[in-house]
Amino acid sequence: MSEKLAEAALDQLFRSARTFNAFLPKPVSDEQLHALYDLAKFGPTSANSSPMRVVFVKSAEGKEKLKPFLSEGNRAKTMAAPVTAIIATDHEFHEKLPQLFPHADARSWFVGNQDLIDRTAFRNATLQGAYVIMAARALGLDCGPMSGFDNAGVDKVFFAGTSIQSNFLINIGYGDSSRDLFPRSPRLSFDEACRLE
Amino acid sequence: MSEKLAEAALDQLFRSARTFNAFLPKPVSDEQLHALYDLAKFGPTSANSSPMRVVFVKSAEGKEKLKPFLSEGNRAKTMAAPVTAIIATDHEFHEKLPQLFPHADARSWFVGNQDLIDRTAFRNATLQGAYVIMAARALGLDCGPMSGFDNAGVDKVFFAGTSIQSNFLINIGYGDSSRDLFPRSPRLSFDEACRLE
Repeated sequence: MSEKLAEAALDQLFRSARTFNAFLPKPVSDEQLHALYDLAKFGPTSANSSPMRVVFVKSAEGKEKLKPFLSEGNRAKTMAAPVTAIIATDHEFHEKLPQLFPHADARSWFVGNQDLIDRTAFRNATLQGAYVIMAARALGLDCGPMSGFDNAGVDKVFFAGTSIQSNFLINIGYGDSSRDLFPRSPRLSFDEACRLE
Repeated sequence: MSEKLAEAALDQLFRSARTFNAFLPKPVSDEQLHALYDLAKFGPTSANSSPMRVVFVKSAEGKEKLKPFLSEGNRAKTMAAPVTAIIATDHEFHEKLPQLFPHADARSWFVGNQDLIDRTAFRNATLQGAYVIMAARALGLDCGPMSGFDNAGVDKVFFAGTSIQSNFLINIGYGDSSRDLFPRSPRLSFDEACRLE
């Protein structure tokens, strides 16, 4: 049985963590991105379906490919971020279920049911995107997630000819709290968002 | 700037954490559920939209309301779990944006664009559902998330006459690793799921 994590860890993961718009000029290594994925991959998905696919855009060439599809408010900060992760969704994830869920014929639950495929893909790839954010914070990195971009344009340039579609973006680096960090916006109280039955 | 969390914390959050089907006969208090929400609420959402709504079902009466809508494979374990959280989505979340995003008229970005409302609601409530899972683990609790249930039935009984729709369920308690804990299924490698550009 686990114990509650130390208060400092809860702060780092949730209470003090912020969405950063500016990052320090400190690189994020490929090894860190591997470590990040190797934590996030363990988060739960329906039938272990693991539909998330990620492009970690680091190079100037990669950023230039992304640039035309960023909304104006997201452009400069994304071009400047050490890494931009394109969190994407494989809408043929079920073809990997014989590998990922070997103890049952889970593939057959999906074949021919496009609505179930699409809902399962979007829900579970999005869960995995949240695991990426939490894993980054657990590794001492900061995030700036965004959904303001031209998904179809990104798909054309990064995922042409595949069953993969972009979902949202996450800038990743070491947050610079001296620049463009907005005050924390209010959250809904327990009683506004939840009830006990 | 944050440091990487201790290896034991990374284990608890990701590497050793498992999806539990059986829970120890140890209750989860209302105070713990408040603490859980008060961590999860800080996770980032688009324009701080915070569209997740949660019903924490603890009572025998609440469980009986849920029972007819659970898929057969999820029924017994859910009835026995200390808490079942119904993670739901408010498809009129934008009406709360004047409160949640006070520095801009974010409500106007959504009004009249039902497709954008629905995609934003589903994506961000799902992100928040993942934050609930991670917050539970951070508090020393275990989870059993599920999407196998009759969403329309649950909506009729728990959310009638509202703009709220069920998304997925999470059983919450102290996992019993001596019962119904399956071997960890394989995950996709970095090279299968990710690339660097």
